[in-house]
Amino acid sequence: MKKLKELAGFVGGAVIGDGEVEISGVASIDEAQSGQITFIANSKYLRKLSETRASAVIVPKEVTSADKPLIYAANPQLAFVKILNLFLAKLYQPKGIDPNAQISPTAQLGKDLTIYPYVYIGDRCQIEDRATLYPGVYVGEDSVIGEDSVLHPNVSVYSGSVIGKRAILHSGVVIGADGFGFVKDGKTNVKIPQVGIVIIEDDVEVGANSTIDRAALGQTIIRRGVKIDNLVQVAHNVEIGEDSIIVAQVGIAGSTKIGKNVILAGQVGVVGHIEIGDNVQVGAQSGVGQSLPADQAFSGSPVMPHREWLRMVTTLPKLPGMRKILTDIEARLKKVEEAISQKGKEK
Amino acid sequence: MKKLKELAGFVGGAVIGDGEVEISGVASIDEAQSGQITFIANSKYLRKLSETRASAVIVPKEVTSADKPLIYAANPQLAFVKILNLFLAKLYQPKGIDPNAQISPTAQLGKDLTIYPYVYIGDRCQIEDRATLYPGVYVGEDSVIGEDSVLHPNVSVYSGSVIGKRAILHSGVVIGADGFGFVKDGKTNVKIPQVGIVIIEDDVEVGANSTIDRAALGQTIIRRGVKIDNLVQVAHNVEIGEDSIIVAQVGIAGSTKIGKNVILAGQVGVVGHIEIGDNVQVGAQSGVGQSLPADQAFSGSPVMPHREWLRMVTTLPKLPGMRKILTDIEARLKKVEEAISQKGKEK
Amino acid sequence: MKKLKELAGFVGGAVIGDGEVEISGVASIDEAQSGQITFIANSKYLRKLSETRASAVIVPKEVTSADKPLIYAANPQLAFVKILNLFLAKLYQPKGIDPNAQISPTAQLGKDLTIYPYVYIGDRCQIEDRATLYPGVYVGEDSVIGEDSVLHPNVSVYSGSVIGKRAILHSGVVIGADGFGFVKDGKTNVKIPQVGIVIIEDDVEVGANSTIDRAALGQTIIRRGVKIDNLVQVAHNVEIGEDSIIVAQVGIAGSTKIGKNVILAGQVGVVGHIEIGDNVQVGAQSGVGQSLPADQAFSGSPVMPHREWLRMVTTLPKLPGMRKILTDIEARLKKVEEAISQKGKEK
Repeated sequence: MKKLKELAGFVGGAVIGDGEVEISGVASIDEAQSGQITFIANSKYLRKLSETRASAVIVPKEVTSADKPLIYAANPQLAFVKILNLFLAKLYQPKGIDPNAQISPTAQLGKDLTIYPYVYIGDRCQIEDRATLYPGVYVGEDSVIGEDSVLHPNVSVYSGSVIGKRAILHSGVVIGADGFGFVKDGKTNVKIPQVGIVIIEDDVEVGANSTIDRAALGQTIIRRGVKIDNLVQVAHNVEIGEDSIIVAQVGIAGSTKIGKNVILAGQVGVVGHIEIGDNVQVGAQSGVGQSLPADQAFSGSPVMPHREWLRMVTTLPKLPGMRKILTDIEARLKKVEEAISQKGKEK
Repeated sequence: MKKLKELAGFVGGAVIGDGEVEISGVASIDEAQSGQITFIANSKYLRKLSETRASAVIVPKEVTSADKPLIYAANPQLAFVKILNLFLAKLYQPKGIDPNAQISPTAQLGKDLTIYPYVYIGDRCQIEDRATLYPGVYVGEDSVIGEDSVLHPNVSVYSGSVIGKRAILHSGVVIGADGFGFVKDGKTNVKIPQVGIVIIEDDVEVGANSTIDRAALGQTIIRRGVKIDNLVQVAHNVEIGEDSIIVAQVGIAGSTKIGKNVILAGQVGVVGHIEIGDNVQVGAQSGVGQSLPADQAFSGSPVMPHREWLRMVTTLPKLPGMRKILTDIEARLKKVEEAISQKGKEK
Repeated sequence: MKKLKELAGFVGGAVIGDGEVEISGVASIDEAQSGQITFIANSKYLRKLSETRASAVIVPKEVTSADKPLIYAANPQLAFVKILNLFLAKLYQPKGIDPNAQISPTAQLGKDLTIYPYVYIGDRCQIEDRATLYPGVYVGEDSVIGEDSVLHPNVSVYSGSVIGKRAILHSGVVIGADGFGFVKDGKTNVKIPQVGIVIIEDDVEVGANSTIDRAALGQTIIRRGVKIDNLVQVAHNVEIGEDSIIVAQVGIAGSTKIGKNVILAGQVGVVGHIEIGDNVQVGAQSGVGQSLPADQAFSGSPVMPHREWLRMVTTLPKLPGMRKILTDIEARLKKVEEAISQKGKEK
């Protein structure tokens, strides 16, 4: 139970009405019950204020009169999520180290760990305080798992990987498998040794079954705050800038550098050895074959500026019709030319 | 060994010729040997009747005379598969619970289970009769695994998931990982807690390394009889209708509702918050950016009606040629206009 | 430490200058230090010869005079990779069989194995000499793992699979899961039993979380020397020819036959039941809907010859402009036709 005024303070919002009302939880506007708080993201839904059973509502606008207490916040969804996290937050309770985990005697273990059975931790690993390793997690030698990180079941971390603090690696994630590099000897493919590592900075989340390959030489780097969805492929020597968002099934080829705060929508493919500028947004299923300047939106395969793409795809279904018109025009033009030529001769 | 008349009865077909012939197995028409049964899917291959060594053949048409016994069935492939399943069916033999599995004392276990080593079953789980859990399977707390279900090696089921009866989850499948939801706080991504669950109804099969995320709130639902291929991504709060078929590497974004009996071909991408009607078929690699009405076929990225797409892609390679013609026509038209203008002046 | 002349002999190159110089390691041209060898792939970078600190350089051209010893090799990158592999090669050191692995008493085990904890090996498996099975690896009954093969953590090999010598299967790979085959009985999907197997020949590498399905009947075959990247889907009864390269997130549908030395770039999709000829190259994100003849390059979805595709995609963004011009021309042509018709009447 929290007082509304406490919640407002917590999210940096302003109370409108009774700040003393007690809030016990959160829910969506349609499902909220008495005692709960909800939110309205967009002013055009303010009419819902009178319909919801919620005891308080976070609103995007300074409403002057309402029949229930409100919190005014510039970004009501963000405020709502912060309050949701507040109510959900459980104190971390370490479960200790299961005797059925196999941990190298040379590994350095922090305190208050949770290590489930069937976890394997290799030589000289460093597992920092309050890390949670679920069943079937493998951590290869010389790796680091940062404080408060959670490795879900069956995550594989190859040797020499460095995972930052508060990382969340979902089930089936593979960190540090060999990058895909071969050189042809005649027709035979000779493997280029992949002797670099993967560095994942703090506050990164990686979705289920995504794969982040180790560098050929040097590092593959996922910067602070990057969020990666499921089934994403990050090749060797890629760098992804801070706070970027990589949606499901994206593939990023080797040595490409993605800027900060970039969004790659689902199933995007990015070729190797290019740079994508800060704040770039790339539409779903796009194919990025060249470097992209910062602060713009792109779509298409191959990509073009998003607006150009919108015009293009609107026209695409008209292409067969255009072809017919073109054939028709060509024939008519020929007639016209003949008519003129005829008249020229007639003269 | 089964008599042909028994097999005909089992598949609802009609015997033509000697129903007493004994059948010991099944094979394709080219590989079948004496004692085996095979099938002809299409009447135009009926000539193969005289070539195959099979002792009996399932045919799509009432053939009046043949030199071997036949079963007439409206759908010979279906009849063949049913007979194949009949011959392959082994009685389920429970192997019991391996002492190297770790099962919470608060889990409820059905009878005749097969639980391999290195399986982890969390608190308050319910594992129903005759379920098979292969090595490395993880079942998080408060989950249900239905009767006769098979979880192949290294499947991860997060807490609170509900898996129906006769489910088949292939290796590396991840059920119930967090949906991908963040809200921006400046440039930082704040995680939206994913507190919903996944419900998988009866008779669902999920291919290797596919991922089905838990709902943000509420449920992600896979309805009865849905078949999902490998490496498919199903985001939070998606619902897939009964008997739908989702081919490999498809991605479905959050809160989208797929109808019944839908087919999404390989590598299709579907955006979030839309509805796809019953019986819709979407061609491979298509990008679905908007809701689709029932009972139609679509293709393309972005999708359009399939026939329209066929015309469009046939025209696409002609685009550069069209452009040349267009430039040519423009120049010729200009000349014509000038000629006419000239004549106007001449008058 | 190796003498330069030894290295030259090893890669089949020719020493230019002092062959007695001792080489202790390898590095890129910018990072190489004294004692190391590096390479220059392209003659246009020969000026770097005077800048690098390396003690020797592999060059693509017979340089007559240089201030340091050289190896001339037709393919300097290949020579460099061979020397890199030489320096990195560690003698394989078997670690033996961990007591926390569960191995069927009917399995045949070769010598000098490395089997980590939480490995499961089923009945009648054959694990050949010097194989390495990391934690969480599952090998189903009647499977073969060839000499010197490495199965990284959490790899699942279903029953009856045959893996050749020197295979590398990265974490999360699934070999031999059921192919995706159903036949409709009304709207219900009846499973077609998948009773074939997977054969992986020698010297194959499969990237993290890729999936190779077992055949419906017969075999899915990955031929000698094939290299498969991460998150690739290979469906039932596919055959991939020797030395082919399959880049990340490619999907190949059932019964398709890929030739030798083929390259499928990232995210390509290939339909079932077609043949792709030897030495074909397919561009990223392409959709292959029909058989492709040998020795050519293709791109696009649907694919067309690569050059045709290049012209097409260059024209695509101009499509809306073309449409405007077409409309304009149509109007102008109409005027011209009217003018001529008018003149006809005037006469």
